[in-house]
Amino acid sequence: MKKLINKPEDVVVEELHGIAAAHPDLVKVYYEPNYIVRADAPVKGKVALVSGGGSGHEPMHGGFVGKGMLDAACPGAVFTSPTPDQMLEATKAVNGGAGVLHIVKNYTGDIMNFEMAAELARGEGIEVEAVVTNDDVAVKDSLYTAGRRGVGITVILEKIAGAAAERGDSLAQVKAIAEQVNAQGRSMGMALTSCTVPQAGKPTFELGDDEMEIGIGIHGEPGRTRLKMKSAHEIVEIMATAVVEDLPYKSGDEVLAFVNGMGGTPLIELYIVYNELYQFLQARGIKIARNLIGSYITSLEMAGCSITLLKLDDQLAALWDAPVKTAGLRWGV
Amino acid sequence: MKKLINKPEDVVVEELHGIAAAHPDLVKVYYEPNYIVRADAPVKGKVALVSGGGSGHEPMHGGFVGKGMLDAACPGAVFTSPTPDQMLEATKAVNGGAGVLHIVKNYTGDIMNFEMAAELARGEGIEVEAVVTNDDVAVKDSLYTAGRRGVGITVILEKIAGAAAERGDSLAQVKAIAEQVNAQGRSMGMALTSCTVPQAGKPTFELGDDEMEIGIGIHGEPGRTRLKMKSAHEIVEIMATAVVEDLPYKSGDEVLAFVNGMGGTPLIELYIVYNELYQFLQARGIKIARNLIGSYITSLEMAGCSITLLKLDDQLAALWDAPVKTAGLRWGV
Repeated sequence: MKKLINKPEDVVVEELHGIAAAHPDLVKVYYEPNYIVRADAPVKGKVALVSGGGSGHEPMHGGFVGKGMLDAACPGAVFTSPTPDQMLEATKAVNGGAGVLHIVKNYTGDIMNFEMAAELARGEGIEVEAVVTNDDVAVKDSLYTAGRRGVGITVILEKIAGAAAERGDSLAQVKAIAEQVNAQGRSMGMALTSCTVPQAGKPTFELGDDEMEIGIGIHGEPGRTRLKMKSAHEIVEIMATAVVEDLPYKSGDEVLAFVNGMGGTPLIELYIVYNELYQFLQARGIKIARNLIGSYITSLEMAGCSITLLKLDDQLAALWDAPVKTAGLRWGV
Repeated sequence: MKKLINKPEDVVVEELHGIAAAHPDLVKVYYEPNYIVRADAPVKGKVALVSGGGSGHEPMHGGFVGKGMLDAACPGAVFTSPTPDQMLEATKAVNGGAGVLHIVKNYTGDIMNFEMAAELARGEGIEVEAVVTNDDVAVKDSLYTAGRRGVGITVILEKIAGAAAERGDSLAQVKAIAEQVNAQGRSMGMALTSCTVPQAGKPTFELGDDEMEIGIGIHGEPGRTRLKMKSAHEIVEIMATAVVEDLPYKSGDEVLAFVNGMGGTPLIELYIVYNELYQFLQARGIKIARNLIGSYITSLEMAGCSITLLKLDDQLAALWDAPVKTAGLRWGV
C-alpha cells in the first residue's frame, strides 16, 4: 500500500486538521465527535442541511459545507458510517430554528444512525426531516444496502437543496425539492481498478489487468457484471443506456449531466467520457442543459467513473445556478 | 493499459470535443491546428495571455481559459510540445491590439516552438512577449530541459497575470508581474506510481511496490532520488525543506501554498499533505495567506503530489483574489 498518509488510523483526523487549516473562512471543524460546520453556523431562520457518510469519498461531504450547500457534514471512518453522536452534535450546532434536513445515502448503517440521531434531536426540540438518496441503477440490493445505493445524485441534491434553503424555503419545501431531485436522478458507475482502505492495507477486491467492473459501488461493492476492458464509447453506451432507460429519460428532456471520477482517474479521461455521453444523449434527443465534470464523489484512489443524470425543470436549473461557496464547488461568489 | 479512452491516437481531439461540448459559455475550440480560446476573444484593448504545452496535465492549460486567466491554450499531443502553427493561430485569434504574452514552461521543445511562433506573430504586426517558468528545485538539467523545469508555479502565474491583464495592465506590466511570480515561486514533486502515455501503452518508468521518486518531473523525468516509501510527514519534510531553502522563504514571509495532486491521488491524501505542510511552515514562522489544494497540473494518472510556494505581497494577493471564471478555477463570478 503506497499512500500519502501517516498512520492508517489517523487518516481521517489528519484530513480534518488539513481542512480546518485550509478553509477557516468556510468551515469550523470539531473533534470527538468529528463534524464540520459552516463558519457562520447556525444561520438563524434558515433550514439547515446535514449530511455525512464514510470518509474516502472526498470532496463529498466535508468539501460541500458552506454558503449555498451543506450546513454540516459528519465524516465517519473510511467507508464506515458516522455515529449518531456525530450527527446529533452537528444537528444541534447548525440548527437555526427553522428545522434540519438530514441527507442520507441509502446504506444500512447510515440510515440507522441518522434515524437514531434524528430521534435524539427531536427529543431536544429540534424539527428534523430526512431524505434518502438511492439513485444507483446498477443493482437492487447490495453489500451494505437494502434497495438501491445512493451515489452521484447526492452531490447534486446537496447543491440544489442547499440553494433552496439559502433562499428561505421552509423545511417541508426543501425536503420536497430534495425528494424531487432524488426521484428524477439516476446513476451508474464503473471501476478500472480497486482501491485500498488504509486500515485494511490491501485492495478491497481484485480485478484482472484486462478487466473492469460495471455497476461498481462507491465502497467497491460488486456491480452488475465484470467485463473485459472496452473502449470509452462502449463503456458509456452500457452505462448511459442503463441510466436513461431506468427513469426513463426521453427525447425533449433537459438534463444535468454529471461525469464523476472515482479518485484515481485523470480529467483528460473524464472529458473523453463526457464527449461520449454528450453524443449518446444528443442522438436520443436529450439535451444537456447543465453539466458537472470532475471527481466529486470518490472511492479513495479507485480508477473509474460514474454517470449521473438529473431531469431538470426551470426551478431545479435556477437552484443549480445559484451561488455556492464551498471548498469543493464554488461559483457566483 | 486500462484507460477510459477510445483509440490512443484520438485522445487529445476527443478530449477537445468534450471540452467544447461542456463549456461553450467559456471557450471556443479550434482544430487543425488545435487551440482553445475564450468565448469572447479577442478582447479589444486587453493584453492577451497564451499558454500551451503537452496534453496529459489537465486541467492545465485548457481548463484555465476564460475571464481573468488565459485567453488561449494550445494543447500538444500527450507530453509533447504543441507546434508553432498552433501558437501562431492562437496568438492571432486572441490579439486585442494590446499585445500578447506567451506563458511557457521551461522545456526545450516548448521554448523553441513558442519563440518561433512569437517571431511569426511579430512578422504579422502583433506585439509578443514571453515569460518562462522554471520553478522546480528538484534538478538543474533534465530529460527535456536545460536549467530548471517549469511546473506548479505556472498555474499560479496564469491566474495572477490573467488578473493583471483583466484590470487593464499594459503588456510590459503584465510581463513584469508574471516574472515576479516566477521569481518568487518554487516547487517540488514526487511520485508513488508511474503513468502510461496512451500511445506508448506501457508505464513511462518502473517503480517498485515500496518505492517512491522524489523530485519527479511532470512527464515522469527522473527526480533527485528514489527512496523507500515514507510517511506523509517525512515526504513533506523532504520536499518542503528543499523548496523553502531554495528561495529562501523566511520567517515573517506570507505565502500562497499550493498542494497539487498528480492525477491519480485522491483529495483525502492531499489534505493530509496540506496539514503537514501547514505545520512545517508554521514552525518556521512562514504564514500561509492563500492556498490551493487539488489536481491542477497533472501527469495523466500518476499518483503523487507536488508542493509550490509563492511569496506574496499585497498586489499579488489581490490579483490572486480577483474574479476568475474558467472550467478549472472559478471564484467571484
